[in-house]
Amino acid sequence: MAQARVRRPELAARFMEAQDAARLFRPGMTVGMSGFTKAGDAKALPRALVERARGEPLDLTLITGASLGNDSDGLMANAGVIARRLPFQADASLRRKINTGEVMFIDQHLSETAEQLRSGVLPAIDIAVIEACAIREDGSIVPTMAVGNSASFVQQAKQVIIELNLAAPVALEGLHDIYVPRPRPGREPIPLTHPGQRIGATAIAVDPARIAAIVVTNSPDSPSSVLPPDTETDAIARHVIAFLEGEVSAGRMTPQLLPLQAGIGTIANAVLHGLTQSSFRGLTMYSEVLQDSAIELLDAGQLALASASSITLSAATHERFIANLDKYRDRIVLRPQEVSNHPEIVRRLGIIGLNTALEFDIYGNVNSTHVGGTHMMNGIGGSGDFARNGELAIFVSKSEAKDGAISSVVPMVSHVDHTEHDVDVLVTEWGLADLRGLAPRERAPVIIEHCAHPAYRAQLRDYYERALLRGGQTPHLLEEALAWHERYRRTGTMQVT
Amino acid sequence: MAQARVRRPELAARFMEAQDAARLFRPGMTVGMSGFTKAGDAKALPRALVERARGEPLDLTLITGASLGNDSDGLMANAGVIARRLPFQADASLRRKINTGEVMFIDQHLSETAEQLRSGVLPAIDIAVIEACAIREDGSIVPTMAVGNSASFVQQAKQVIIELNLAAPVALEGLHDIYVPRPRPGREPIPLTHPGQRIGATAIAVDPARIAAIVVTNSPDSPSSVLPPDTETDAIARHVIAFLEGEVSAGRMTPQLLPLQAGIGTIANAVLHGLTQSSFRGLTMYSEVLQDSAIELLDAGQLALASASSITLSAATHERFIANLDKYRDRIVLRPQEVSNHPEIVRRLGIIGLNTALEFDIYGNVNSTHVGGTHMMNGIGGSGDFARNGELAIFVSKSEAKDGAISSVVPMVSHVDHTEHDVDVLVTEWGLADLRGLAPRERAPVIIEHCAHPAYRAQLRDYYERALLRGGQTPHLLEEALAWHERYRRTGTMQVT
Repeated sequence: MAQARVRRPELAARFMEAQDAARLFRPGMTVGMSGFTKAGDAKALPRALVERARGEPLDLTLITGASLGNDSDGLMANAGVIARRLPFQADASLRRKINTGEVMFIDQHLSETAEQLRSGVLPAIDIAVIEACAIREDGSIVPTMAVGNSASFVQQAKQVIIELNLAAPVALEGLHDIYVPRPRPGREPIPLTHPGQRIGATAIAVDPARIAAIVVTNSPDSPSSVLPPDTETDAIARHVIAFLEGEVSAGRMTPQLLPLQAGIGTIANAVLHGLTQSSFRGLTMYSEVLQDSAIELLDAGQLALASASSITLSAATHERFIANLDKYRDRIVLRPQEVSNHPEIVRRLGIIGLNTALEFDIYGNVNSTHVGGTHMMNGIGGSGDFARNGELAIFVSKSEAKDGAISSVVPMVSHVDHTEHDVDVLVTEWGLADLRGLAPRERAPVIIEHCAHPAYRAQLRDYYERALLRGGQTPHLLEEALAWHERYRRTGTMQVT
Repeated sequence: MAQARVRRPELAARFMEAQDAARLFRPGMTVGMSGFTKAGDAKALPRALVERARGEPLDLTLITGASLGNDSDGLMANAGVIARRLPFQADASLRRKINTGEVMFIDQHLSETAEQLRSGVLPAIDIAVIEACAIREDGSIVPTMAVGNSASFVQQAKQVIIELNLAAPVALEGLHDIYVPRPRPGREPIPLTHPGQRIGATAIAVDPARIAAIVVTNSPDSPSSVLPPDTETDAIARHVIAFLEGEVSAGRMTPQLLPLQAGIGTIANAVLHGLTQSSFRGLTMYSEVLQDSAIELLDAGQLALASASSITLSAATHERFIANLDKYRDRIVLRPQEVSNHPEIVRRLGIIGLNTALEFDIYGNVNSTHVGGTHMMNGIGGSGDFARNGELAIFVSKSEAKDGAISSVVPMVSHVDHTEHDVDVLVTEWGLADLRGLAPRERAPVIIEHCAHPAYRAQLRDYYERALLRGGQTPHLLEEALAWHERYRRTGTMQVT
């Protein structure tokens, strides 16, 4: 069965066990692995590298698309396989190693990593490990449920290890659209003018001589771990939908809206899920990831087509998706993350970006990454690519965390990932703040009254009113601006008691 | 003489005195004015509006390209002409009104204003006031030393007032390249692949029926107020040049580098000036503004061509530039700021962005706008367009201000305009920190030892070492993170005494 998926006969000689392929690695190498939001990641080599590292620590620089599934990041971090990691992760064990300083984490905009590899800012990829569902006659690699940075890794890698995953149907072939911008100078415009347009190849080209090993696996992607919608996420979805309906009424958008992007996670997924209850039809997505909600919207006929760099689904939705692949084939395109998140395309198409905030402040600055201003959660991901360059940057969050001990609306965020220049709309279960065209002093009352939890509004008003006495474009009491976070650290709550 | 510059005979009937044109304005209108970094601004209408407002406050929303010259912003702010202002300013009196909250200031990325006008997020322009050096047979408007947002204002305005400035030579005709992206959906790629390429018209098209008034002026642009290079700016320039030479040696750039952008102001100008002492040849600029240094580099033959949205010069350089216009004609292109700063072009060309920081922190976050975290200086301008989307984001600052009472390198910036994700290189007179590929914990020692003033290094090390004990991706002591600014406010110095 594996042989039938390798259509270039000479490559039959490269079949290898994972532990043998792991011997190709040397300490300190730079490794590019497929995988984006748990989809399309290599399943065997991470574990083989953990074994390999029992002899000597490998201290690899590991670059991926985004997060890996199968606990791979955590296992590799704990075993000393990884010394440096970019551009994103979402693993509890690796997170611990990052926050103790044992693993260096470079938190990047997801459109930028491929560019930095190409220009030589990052060290060149020694070995690429790419999950595939087939290898073509010309040696080109057909990815599985994600493209991520795989095409750029393969272009640059001295050696390519292919994980041929028999659990990924060959029917995925044709879903991908591989386009990689050329080096500068002399780069041409990316010819994409519509979310569903195909501009590249359906497989990743590679000189077959560089394929060092083919490792057979038979293991599904880790299922998505998003939580089902709840009262708060339903309310957030309603606010977002009412806002978008208002944009259509005001004549700023057509009823088809503009292409939607939705970040990974429970709240963004719930908002898209909420769209199934709306009257919107003929929608498009131009996103980095598709979750269950995108499949629901396709099934409901409300989403005309969806472009992304990966598809990460719950087990049940995954099964339905694979069983009905032919139904989705003409309506889904999987692209390199450099293209799915590219500033050129994001501005041209006018993306509506919907991403999750950890916290935001009364002037509209957003923290997406750092708990308490210091400890990394996952990473900025593609939110910056979309928020800076898109038509509309919407950030969503529940108004409280830890049973009310933490307010998601604070006087000053403890870490800034998205500045007030980039943030258009903020939403919690309590309401929506439309910040477009507002100065900071106009933003604060709107954010406090529309978005903050009522239990924190008086405290926020008090801060803002006293800050106003000091004046400025963005009034603050610097000696108090971060006191809420400090209070939580010391007393376990941001509430003044 | 004025008549000869208006080549459409019927428009002779629209000649009008400024005070008569000012009667076209109604309180609360949205007005778009030409002008970008003091260049190409309307000279007569701002003063006529000040007179007009003596009867009743006008409370206009005033949108420009960027800053105006001739004290216009201050005079209008003081007279109650302006209630809202965007996207940039650099006037002491207006700044005071902004910081007291009397004028609402919306501080925008300079590429975004035209997009927000087009999509209806901002109120539509009622009246556009555009400085011109000529009006063509078809009524189209030939701008002067800046394009800014003028083309977008004219597209949208119900009435257009043209200030025909006889002090601006008609020979400027041909320098401009007017291209305005079309509305979405269906927008095409911007076909620009080389900094000097012309993709549009040489004048701003307008239905002549909308030209409500032609006001004749004879008044030069305010001269640029940049200071001459000094010991510190010379040192900063040397560090930047050595770094760029290193990029060439490492094979990451050709000796022609990539197109350069340099922000407005003394330090960026000094760094470009420093390039005249370098061995670089065949350079190009793709910037928002050209200052004296760009003309020097063109004169020296080191700069092959320069694209920008405005040219702001000292009086002497301005005179030389105008006298030798034919020499520069083939090597300078003036574009709408939406194009000069467009994410699509900035990423495609791979701009090297060089901008000034007010302060930066030990992890590489940059404050470009807010003194003490609260009071607006000028605005973010185009720095975010270039830093986020370009190939290389370099931020420069002197290491100290106020005779050493303020350190430009602080534990945590008091306001974030550019996040650590976007900042590649930091430079002060003491040295350069190359942050590319470094995690925050690796950045801090490099920034402290290379960039901070020696008088502040021990204090910074002490903070960082104690913050490390708390752990995290980005270690901080939140209760102390902004204490340096607070100390300066209370005691007049950031130094611990």
